[in-house]
Amino acid sequence: MTQFTHQCGTKIVFGQGVKGLGREAAAFGRRALVCYGGGSAKRNGILGAVCSELAEAGVAALLFEGVEPNPRVTTVERGAALCKKEGVEVVIAIGGGSVMDCAKMIAAATMSEGSVWELVTRRAPIRAALPVLTVVTIAATGSEMDAGAVITNWETHEKYGIFDDRLLPRVSFLEPRFTYTVPPFQTACGAADILSHVFDKYYFTLNEKLAFTDGVMEALMRAVVRFAPVAMREPENYEARANLMWAASWALNGYLSPRGGATSCHAMEHELSAYYDITHGLGLAILMPKWLRYCCDGLRAPQIKQFGVNVFGLEASVSDMDGAFAAIEALERFLYDALGLARTLTEAGIGEEHFKEMAKNAARGGGIEGFRHLGAEDVEAIYRMCL
Amino acid sequence: MTQFTHQCGTKIVFGQGVKGLGREAAAFGRRALVCYGGGSAKRNGILGAVCSELAEAGVAALLFEGVEPNPRVTTVERGAALCKKEGVEVVIAIGGGSVMDCAKMIAAATMSEGSVWELVTRRAPIRAALPVLTVVTIAATGSEMDAGAVITNWETHEKYGIFDDRLLPRVSFLEPRFTYTVPPFQTACGAADILSHVFDKYYFTLNEKLAFTDGVMEALMRAVVRFAPVAMREPENYEARANLMWAASWALNGYLSPRGGATSCHAMEHELSAYYDITHGLGLAILMPKWLRYCCDGLRAPQIKQFGVNVFGLEASVSDMDGAFAAIEALERFLYDALGLARTLTEAGIGEEHFKEMAKNAARGGGIEGFRHLGAEDVEAIYRMCL
Repeated sequence: MTQFTHQCGTKIVFGQGVKGLGREAAAFGRRALVCYGGGSAKRNGILGAVCSELAEAGVAALLFEGVEPNPRVTTVERGAALCKKEGVEVVIAIGGGSVMDCAKMIAAATMSEGSVWELVTRRAPIRAALPVLTVVTIAATGSEMDAGAVITNWETHEKYGIFDDRLLPRVSFLEPRFTYTVPPFQTACGAADILSHVFDKYYFTLNEKLAFTDGVMEALMRAVVRFAPVAMREPENYEARANLMWAASWALNGYLSPRGGATSCHAMEHELSAYYDITHGLGLAILMPKWLRYCCDGLRAPQIKQFGVNVFGLEASVSDMDGAFAAIEALERFLYDALGLARTLTEAGIGEEHFKEMAKNAARGGGIEGFRHLGAEDVEAIYRMCL
Repeated sequence: MTQFTHQCGTKIVFGQGVKGLGREAAAFGRRALVCYGGGSAKRNGILGAVCSELAEAGVAALLFEGVEPNPRVTTVERGAALCKKEGVEVVIAIGGGSVMDCAKMIAAATMSEGSVWELVTRRAPIRAALPVLTVVTIAATGSEMDAGAVITNWETHEKYGIFDDRLLPRVSFLEPRFTYTVPPFQTACGAADILSHVFDKYYFTLNEKLAFTDGVMEALMRAVVRFAPVAMREPENYEARANLMWAASWALNGYLSPRGGATSCHAMEHELSAYYDITHGLGLAILMPKWLRYCCDGLRAPQIKQFGVNVFGLEASVSDMDGAFAAIEALERFLYDALGLARTLTEAGIGEEHFKEMAKNAARGGGIEGFRHLGAEDVEAIYRMCL
């Protein structure tokens, strides 16, 4: 029987720039921390637009620049210390998943006294968090509409995902035009990330299914397959950017996961980026087809075939096994030919030296659940298929 | 450019009966009004389960029985008077759209001093509302996840829909098993209602489109077309009931309407049920294909054809006009053959005597916007096509 509990109260403001951000922030407080990555938020004018919205609404803005990809616990610590010192009441993220995740954990760490890493690893509970607003600049993680954050401890090579309702953004501004400057490679990595959220968490499962939700997931994946190459070719194609942006939020907002949360490829990828700082979407793109090949057997082939038929429009009148392999090949063509992403870890400059440790970490706590249970040996074998 | 603002914070508890309802209600207050329709909530044990949940959580339950289909403003007035007198802090609806809508307006009217009809018609603003919880017993209106309510003034033959964020249910319990006892006719009317929400509001538009959302809408309509006849034949088929139930919520929770709210058939149907107390879904089923025929021209045929191809699996390699008429015929076969609903108003016992007034009411305020602008004469012509 399908059972789930879900709530996602994030207010979405789509296609309207950052209009109203000042008013929304002022509802939560008078002092805002504005988090962003490098200079692109400045160059493309988004930071300026946010600051002027805040100023007009009488909200003081403290800038927090330099949130890195795969955000580190040390950055969260710095941000939280600043918030405490300056009496910040609301945190605003301008960026992609890294900035949003970092902002969420800064919001939680500000309301806590203990070690930030203990919060991330759930050894200490999150009891409260400042309200978070986001301004999304890349269609990828869906962090703008989910209550999760992934933080890396660079010293210990650990990357943890935490999920807590208090981390859910209150308001997210989705403006497809803000993604016009995302370069083709990052657009491709974002598309792989969006695809993987559905692919990984929702599609392949031996659990109870809900046909309606399956159909929605297929629609989402079809949108990614159709519009990602368009956005790479025509960076200012509003329709392509809008479809990718809204699909990204939906891929992770929880409404598509009535079957619970298997995240096989994500669990394996998090180890890659904990050790190598590889772009998350690229790591996923390398892993997805290999994982599918590793899982493919008589029990699982029908679903893999269905993926090919309903997402890539492949022929349905073939055997399950032929259909499954055709689906995997279609996925490879999309990721490696249409998106032009690296096919192997070797191409991405990653060797086998840490595979054993990484596999052990990925499978900690009894292995990875999902379409097929994966122990440390399975994970290591999949990493080797990626060489 | 696609622009929208949306938020839907309703917590959904799916497939878990009313487990946790007491705790959720107690978070809002100690005295609950429990609204329901006739005796079916009693007979099928749902009322008992709700009362025992409330009692265990220390919440006093006041029963409010007898909410009628197409709920009347006089019923809202009685409920609100009771809430005021008894100091009710939270309103619980057990039922379908009528009970939920009535409960929402009771929640708002309790927090207001003026006339309830003035609130419904927006001549007086809703400033606050008691929190509302719902327990859904039929897959149909989607009121469990939206902020709207439709109330009828029987004296003046007026039926108004009001939409206000304060009316959004806080928690909705969706248990497919609670719909096992819904008879085939009501199941069919509910399915027509679900279909119409997508069909009417989202699918047919000349506005900006978002391919991803189109795909989701098609998935939703396919689920209704596939599972409604199953639920009629096998009332205890969990999969069929679960798909219909979740599709109903999605059809109206706003995430599928980035293009705004045309509601052509609903506007016409509301007049039918304001004058005749016809079941809402049946009125819609009679109207939908006629409206589509009336709208079908060279500009609109491609979209109507696409509806047939993507929802009913019709052949794509025909002309737009042929494809459009094939789509309308497929819709008719679904509504009148598969669901067995009445094809005409005549069959439903409704004549032409009030058509002129009804058409004038439906088109008040400059006509019905949507796929095609409809003035009073257009509406009257469509009503005549339904005879």
